[in-house]
Amino acid sequence: MPRILHDLACLDDRRLSPYCWRSKYALAHKGLEFEARPHGFLDIQQLYGGAHRTLPILDDDGRVVHDSWAIADFLDTHYPDRPPLFSGPAERALCRFTEAWLFGALAPLLLPMLALDIHDHAHPSDRAYFRESREKRLGRSLEAAAAGREEQLSELRAALSPLRLTFTAQGQQFLSGDRAGYADYIAAGIFLWAASVTTLPLLERDDPVVAWFERMRDLHDGLGRTAPMYAIAA
Amino acid sequence: MPRILHDLACLDDRRLSPYCWRSKYALAHKGLEFEARPHGFLDIQQLYGGAHRTLPILDDDGRVVHDSWAIADFLDTHYPDRPPLFSGPAERALCRFTEAWLFGALAPLLLPMLALDIHDHAHPSDRAYFRESREKRLGRSLEAAAAGREEQLSELRAALSPLRLTFTAQGQQFLSGDRAGYADYIAAGIFLWAASVTTLPLLERDDPVVAWFERMRDLHDGLGRTAPMYAIAA
Repeated sequence: MPRILHDLACLDDRRLSPYCWRSKYALAHKGLEFEARPHGFLDIQQLYGGAHRTLPILDDDGRVVHDSWAIADFLDTHYPDRPPLFSGPAERALCRFTEAWLFGALAPLLLPMLALDIHDHAHPSDRAYFRESREKRLGRSLEAAAAGREEQLSELRAALSPLRLTFTAQGQQFLSGDRAGYADYIAAGIFLWAASVTTLPLLERDDPVVAWFERMRDLHDGLGRTAPMYAIAA
Repeated sequence: MPRILHDLACLDDRRLSPYCWRSKYALAHKGLEFEARPHGFLDIQQLYGGAHRTLPILDDDGRVVHDSWAIADFLDTHYPDRPPLFSGPAERALCRFTEAWLFGALAPLLLPMLALDIHDHAHPSDRAYFRESREKRLGRSLEAAAAGREEQLSELRAALSPLRLTFTAQGQQFLSGDRAGYADYIAAGIFLWAASVTTLPLLERDDPVVAWFERMRDLHDGLGRTAPMYAIAA
């Protein structure tokens, strides 16, 4: 009974997709074994008759589920005897808000900083596609987007203050409390994405966000250490 | 059996404290009747032998609870047969993160913009205290902090994108999903605070955040309309 999580990969088997990372954590949270099968950007269209343009795709012994939220809901529905990803609708809704924070406040800063690094780590056959699609989205060349990014590090670090305050002023080990939950998996995916491709020190070494990220990498038998990464801190 | 929520008030019986607002919503969420008794800043020290320097304080028939988080936990513990504020530890932890976002990303923008307005709406006897304590915190005069604040509106509105995305891209009615929860009460408190004192149009009229705020004011028999306020939108 094979269980396959189709996963985005680039050179050196680096696994960069934040959406795939959260689904891998979700599977591990449920205690479900799986193979994280690597694909380049352009390989996605060869899966399941080209039905989907993005990863992750979960193939659970023939049941095919696309999209990280659909996968999370599928796992809670089909494995109700396993630890739940969502304790109820309020936790799920607040995970959505956490995602909105990451993609509303952080991703706009990070994507321009990382796009050239992602390109340079992509399989050579994926690079033309990646450059064209991302330059269209960014409205400028990957090189122009990356220019002066060292000067933007302080803005990025300041934008992380809600995450940092959760660990300091609020005294929590994880966004979800004493134990990591799906909100943590969503947030960690962003940093796993970044650490997969960039040598830029996104965080300062003594930032409480770094300590949380290391806790996240340790979880589930070191799931966050199963692919090559650069150091996230200076 | 009187139940009193000691509430911060200023001129015209405006109720400005975001912490008091969330506790009033928490009481209403539990279906518990209460009197929201008004006090000026300097009156707080006359309550309960000066044991506390801030509001809210809940006096539930002689059981005195200080601090909005302690009040929320007290209400769930002592009224377990009433609708829960927190479905479990994960929702509570994610409410803490929501608060960290508001106080890490929004309050630093809002406090300088609003401080002079709060001063001007405070009871005359409270103004010297308020000016001194807030100028110390802000590191400049209230007038200097408020200077040019119209130019900061675009930054403030951009900082609200996580909230906005939750209602648009994520399609939720409330931060907590289909029904308002404590995360919504925390967030609404910030806007109720602002609308109590400023004529500055913080939001644009067609902003989905405005529609959510109006839904929040309607809740619990119009609790958010029980004190005078200015319009939040242009």
